[in-house]
Amino acid sequence: MPLKKSWVTSANSADHPFPLNNLPYGVFSTAGTDPRCGVAIGDMILDLQAAEAAGLVDLGDEPMFEMPFWNEIMEEGPALWTALRNRLIALLQDGAEEQKTVEPCLVPMADAELHMPVIVSEYTDFYAGRHHATNVGTMFRGAENALPPNWLHIPIGYNGRASSVVVSGTDVRRPWGQLKGPNDAAPRWAPCARFDIELEMGALVGTPSEGPITVQEADDNIFGYVLLNDWSARDIQAWEYQPLGPFQAKATATSISPWIVTKAALEPFRCDTPSREVELLDHLKDCGPMLYDIDLEVTLRPEGGEGATIARTNYKEMYYSAAQQLAHHTTSGCPMTPGDLLGSGTISGPEKDQRGSLLELSWGGKEPLTLPTGESRSFIEDGDTLTLKGAAKGDGYTIGFGDCTGTVVPALSDPYAR
Amino acid sequence: MPLKKSWVTSANSADHPFPLNNLPYGVFSTAGTDPRCGVAIGDMILDLQAAEAAGLVDLGDEPMFEMPFWNEIMEEGPALWTALRNRLIALLQDGAEEQKTVEPCLVPMADAELHMPVIVSEYTDFYAGRHHATNVGTMFRGAENALPPNWLHIPIGYNGRASSVVVSGTDVRRPWGQLKGPNDAAPRWAPCARFDIELEMGALVGTPSEGPITVQEADDNIFGYVLLNDWSARDIQAWEYQPLGPFQAKATATSISPWIVTKAALEPFRCDTPSREVELLDHLKDCGPMLYDIDLEVTLRPEGGEGATIARTNYKEMYYSAAQQLAHHTTSGCPMTPGDLLGSGTISGPEKDQRGSLLELSWGGKEPLTLPTGESRSFIEDGDTLTLKGAAKGDGYTIGFGDCTGTVVPALSDPYAR
Repeated sequence: MPLKKSWVTSANSADHPFPLNNLPYGVFSTAGTDPRCGVAIGDMILDLQAAEAAGLVDLGDEPMFEMPFWNEIMEEGPALWTALRNRLIALLQDGAEEQKTVEPCLVPMADAELHMPVIVSEYTDFYAGRHHATNVGTMFRGAENALPPNWLHIPIGYNGRASSVVVSGTDVRRPWGQLKGPNDAAPRWAPCARFDIELEMGALVGTPSEGPITVQEADDNIFGYVLLNDWSARDIQAWEYQPLGPFQAKATATSISPWIVTKAALEPFRCDTPSREVELLDHLKDCGPMLYDIDLEVTLRPEGGEGATIARTNYKEMYYSAAQQLAHHTTSGCPMTPGDLLGSGTISGPEKDQRGSLLELSWGGKEPLTLPTGESRSFIEDGDTLTLKGAAKGDGYTIGFGDCTGTVVPALSDPYAR
Repeated sequence: MPLKKSWVTSANSADHPFPLNNLPYGVFSTAGTDPRCGVAIGDMILDLQAAEAAGLVDLGDEPMFEMPFWNEIMEEGPALWTALRNRLIALLQDGAEEQKTVEPCLVPMADAELHMPVIVSEYTDFYAGRHHATNVGTMFRGAENALPPNWLHIPIGYNGRASSVVVSGTDVRRPWGQLKGPNDAAPRWAPCARFDIELEMGALVGTPSEGPITVQEADDNIFGYVLLNDWSARDIQAWEYQPLGPFQAKATATSISPWIVTKAALEPFRCDTPSREVELLDHLKDCGPMLYDIDLEVTLRPEGGEGATIARTNYKEMYYSAAQQLAHHTTSGCPMTPGDLLGSGTISGPEKDQRGSLLELSWGGKEPLTLPTGESRSFIEDGDTLTLKGAAKGDGYTIGFGDCTGTVVPALSDPYAR
């Protein structure tokens, strides 16, 4: 599929993240106005509340864009999603009759502040990238026992904290926590010294479900994808995570990119999961290409310095698709709701510079990275800005995600010393 | 503090669960009416929407009881909670001037259906009962390694699934899951064969918080308590839980009792946590009695049979209070919201008949229980009704919780065989 041309001419460049082929959904405000839903097109945002008020988007009896989040539309399901996308393409394509009526509803992206596009109902984080699981397992348990016995049979995941999910651009405060090194006699209360990122994709559930659903149904229920950085306090995690999994190590913040890229925009980039050395049980088997070919990278910018790319990988490195993760999530009868966010797990490639966390890039701190400034990094320092980028490369166009970025600000002075 | 007398005379008996001293909050409906907030008094429910409409409860400029859940009141904080309770005591106490106006707002509890009293924003389950952790640890890792090294230093917990929390009386469908016994060559897809209960108390967060809070602040932020049954699929759990904790094993359902018992009602029953062999770090130290002396019991009733009490214990057996759990939950900066539900962890006493799960009562299935019917039980059978009961015994009165009950119905035929 080639580039679709828009009368918003900034959208018509091969490397612009928001061509007519994309049309990702977000929530924005401009100075002195309230947050509302919008769709990105080139350097502009189409204000959907304004478009609806102007009669340009009419999807039912009730206004659809009164709320400053996408959950209600996500809940409506695929037929409405398709109708909305088709209408937006018709309004924004080159030669659209409605151009003169639509133009007043456009807002320059440069004037907009972006907000959380969705109320995250619950957040689940998986551990479904094989290179990442192997790297972490090798560091902690040795190469022979790197993958846990269940890993090739189920997408391992844990419930995270929805209240801690923030939109790109939100500063992240280095947490305090209870820490105990292997040689310490007792734990102590201190700021995290091994603060890290995890490069992930997030899948957003649209259509709710009650009982077990198939992988195909799961794929149908997914509304779209975002970039996701699962900030991780490795030293807190090491002390707390046995036997019930990560808890406070993952609860400081999880950042997501501000634009939800729809499944429809990603359709041309579908690809298969890797071949499997162990056959999955029937209910988890692949039933079509449900991963996506999306180039991913991480940059680290020290305070006042230049950003450097520290990792490049691709979403197709995952062992399990989001559809498989969502299907597994429902096997026990767990109800899923609009706004459920599923983190893919850290996406690492097979090579050293394809690793999606500093834990892996610096091999547990033993092999610090050297930045272009000459500084070295084992884990994140205060003032560092970490940015995830994602792009699917089409025939003369790009499907971009908008950066997922966050600056780590210093820990509070002891929050209990008062 | 003795029994407070009410003109609702059914409330004036020493063993009635809902005297004027209690006034627990719930949500109810009667035939043909919508769910709305109410307060239990004796055998009646005071309809708070009706009482507000009649001008009997006037807590601010806006109506407080338009929504069929308590979250908005919980968010308001302790000053409003106290004002509401004081007003309700004034309206319902013996000799109240308003009796004639209040009477039409009373609904017989026998005519009411009870609903979820709160929208559970997120659900966290702890593992903070020492006897339970020791029993389970002994079964899985041997007596020498029963308690994990971190257990005496932090209240271990994991995030659960808010969407799976249901009100007492809701049937619970036996889940399917991926199972693999220690001697099986490969996992298989089958109905859970080791379905279990966990006897817990649930603490409901009212006042929201953003950063780390102290144990005292945490106690202040708790709105009230419910009974909680964390239904657990032990065979699913055994296969899935390493390395990231329980996931689908705990996602079928968690039942709560329908009435939120407020901190104010429980105030006379405060008691200390047990003495500690290891000193806690300062920020988790006890700063007053924050457990409660609440008698708890579990009954099991086979289909068509008589119920039998299979365990009796007390909430004061916990090692960590809900306030300590909530304070720990915020250490990383994790935001807490109104409707956050914190499960205490399974509450077991030191004796064999004081254990709060079938896993412990039947010692992993090796010592099945014999019921009065002569049937034996290692884990739950289809048709069994499990009921948790709780009561704090005062001077001539009882603070009851209302039963937390659920009947286990047979698994679906294979949900993927279609």
